[in-house]
Amino acid sequence: MGAIQINPSRLMADLQTLRGFGRMGNAVVRQAFTAVDIEARRWLAEKMSEATLRPVWDEVGNVFALPRGDEPTILIGSHSDTQREGGWLDGAYGVICGLEIARAAQEAGRGGVACVAFADEEGAFAPMLGSRYWTGELSLQAVRACSDSQGRQLADVLAGIPEIARADRVPYERFRAFIEPHVEQGPVLDGSGDNVAVVSAIAGVRQLELSFTGEQNHAGATPMEGRRDALHEFLQYASALCKAFTARASEAAVWTFGELGIHPNSPSIIPGRVRAVLQVRDVTTAGLDALMGEALQLAERLRGVRGVDIEARQVLSVAPTKMAPDLSGELAMAAAEHSPRKWRRMPSGALHDAAIISSKLPTAMVFAPSLGGRTHPFDEDTRPEHLVLGCSVVAAAVSRLQS
Amino acid sequence: MGAIQINPSRLMADLQTLRGFGRMGNAVVRQAFTAVDIEARRWLAEKMSEATLRPVWDEVGNVFALPRGDEPTILIGSHSDTQREGGWLDGAYGVICGLEIARAAQEAGRGGVACVAFADEEGAFAPMLGSRYWTGELSLQAVRACSDSQGRQLADVLAGIPEIARADRVPYERFRAFIEPHVEQGPVLDGSGDNVAVVSAIAGVRQLELSFTGEQNHAGATPMEGRRDALHEFLQYASALCKAFTARASEAAVWTFGELGIHPNSPSIIPGRVRAVLQVRDVTTAGLDALMGEALQLAERLRGVRGVDIEARQVLSVAPTKMAPDLSGELAMAAAEHSPRKWRRMPSGALHDAAIISSKLPTAMVFAPSLGGRTHPFDEDTRPEHLVLGCSVVAAAVSRLQS
Repeated sequence: MGAIQINPSRLMADLQTLRGFGRMGNAVVRQAFTAVDIEARRWLAEKMSEATLRPVWDEVGNVFALPRGDEPTILIGSHSDTQREGGWLDGAYGVICGLEIARAAQEAGRGGVACVAFADEEGAFAPMLGSRYWTGELSLQAVRACSDSQGRQLADVLAGIPEIARADRVPYERFRAFIEPHVEQGPVLDGSGDNVAVVSAIAGVRQLELSFTGEQNHAGATPMEGRRDALHEFLQYASALCKAFTARASEAAVWTFGELGIHPNSPSIIPGRVRAVLQVRDVTTAGLDALMGEALQLAERLRGVRGVDIEARQVLSVAPTKMAPDLSGELAMAAAEHSPRKWRRMPSGALHDAAIISSKLPTAMVFAPSLGGRTHPFDEDTRPEHLVLGCSVVAAAVSRLQS
Repeated sequence: MGAIQINPSRLMADLQTLRGFGRMGNAVVRQAFTAVDIEARRWLAEKMSEATLRPVWDEVGNVFALPRGDEPTILIGSHSDTQREGGWLDGAYGVICGLEIARAAQEAGRGGVACVAFADEEGAFAPMLGSRYWTGELSLQAVRACSDSQGRQLADVLAGIPEIARADRVPYERFRAFIEPHVEQGPVLDGSGDNVAVVSAIAGVRQLELSFTGEQNHAGATPMEGRRDALHEFLQYASALCKAFTARASEAAVWTFGELGIHPNSPSIIPGRVRAVLQVRDVTTAGLDALMGEALQLAERLRGVRGVDIEARQVLSVAPTKMAPDLSGELAMAAAEHSPRKWRRMPSGALHDAAIISSKLPTAMVFAPSLGGRTHPFDEDTRPEHLVLGCSVVAAAVSRLQS
């Protein structure tokens, strides 16, 4: 069998076509289960058919492209939905890589490669909904009961998609491995000058929802002494946390207050309530445990000291995941060949469908560099030669795995 | 002439009736120029007529009750609009006190007392719009050009109110003084056990709008080192400010971050932008200057240090105002008589229409205690005997001023 030869210009053209579904300047607005997301999936299914692959929609809108035979098959892909405003490559890159490699495998007369566009990785209804359904972590009933920020229930949304009514099941047992190519969405590769990375592990995530409840009062008539200012208390908490975390966190650990709301949010009223979400990531469970323990202890220690109640509740926990060593080893060999001395192994700070799939299939990931490490949707970009390189590395590893 | 004798049960009954316009549990929703605000003003005008006073609407919806003669007249009142969700006494108390005292003065056959319900003190269209129009600080044109948060222009809203089409002018020169009774909206009286206060000065207000601009990035994929986290920078700024202000502020000074918004406000994204409003109040211009200078210098000092740009812009400035000494002296005498050793002089941290009117007329204020100092709309309350006492103190001072 000849090696799988990808077609770089076809890869780039398909990436640009997919970008057109929901394009908004440099960003893309293609949230899961919107009309434009479904249109994009229909276009993907057409491209799969053209490549003599069999497109299959499952019950939650994951779209697979299957080779006709039942030979041992490697699945390649990612998700094709975006955040409310997403970068054009996030998710899309892995899907089109999968399409291109599966297509090239068909052309080489060898097959054995399938591709997938998972549904709702970004969590319009629930984070990584498609891969969590596929691996059995979420039941169909649970999926259908999910609702979005506007209160629409997913069951109702799914009922409006004809392809879902004709859906098929695609058991994961059918595949021997899963590979997810992705853009780094961070500054490591761009900063180091490396052209490609093989992912060693995906950091776990914990989220703590913190509620500070003080007393809402007039900002002019209430003296400083005796105020129960919920925002002031959050500031004390965040400062203390930052100091404690800086002292004890591992090099790979990160933490962020990304969500914050104050009530009633008026210049003349002392905030009576603050709600903040602390997100912590690390590549080891011990690291996550240590940081979360610190965050909870601190809430306990400050509770009530200045008349402000503090509640802390863990709202998300995803365990760190090691990538499959053999599969990653093949990708590393291919990376070393295609980009000698200009590649690296690195952990992924971002979560990916791969973290979910790894519980069921040998799973690996490849990263292409993000220019300037930027993931702001309007700036996100990757050099075309790096997009092609990442895809070539996966194609080469798949060729070797099949031989 | 007999002294003015207020009727406590009539005062309380009218307060409860006014509360019914827009009541929502313990709070009141009666924003300026809404249907319920106009209905409340019509009811007030009726009560004024019943009391043989002449109700007059002016071009912006201020409603005055004038005695028939042209004797030297003392104006008493406040505003009858509320915040989006307001306490039942804020503003309403001063208006009904004015109505009761003007009515009692008519009954005593002495007249010489007018009452006013100013429009839009709370700033649905512009803060203290009614009193700022009345004193000439805002032109009619400027008032009509104001728009609310939903983009409605006030000119259009006013066009729908028949009383405005028949409006009259009520020149402030017609009055010899203005007295605004109000609830304290703070904890000082309730904490000290005093039953009434005469206001010495109204604190000035400055507001600084602060914008922190860093870089929005993926919270998992971006290492701590090199982050340009706008919220983290705000935390640094707020901590440093709090320390500096605590060290140098006067006893009367207060400061509050009451408004805060972060972008994009998602747990997995490092905040790229933060907008915060710092409000500072003090009873002297020198005090305000010192604190604002500190806040601006700090922004200058931190700008760019961690890759986050900081912009600071003063968006509001209201000078501190001393109350008229003679008028306040009469109120103090009355307070001492009606509540021996259980009264005090105190500054007002909150702004009031009185601060605006004081530029044109001798102006004074009286405070009734707020239970627990609470101004949260659903908790705001004052003991009935304190509401009656505040009104009696003003009535007694007016009696003496007229004799």
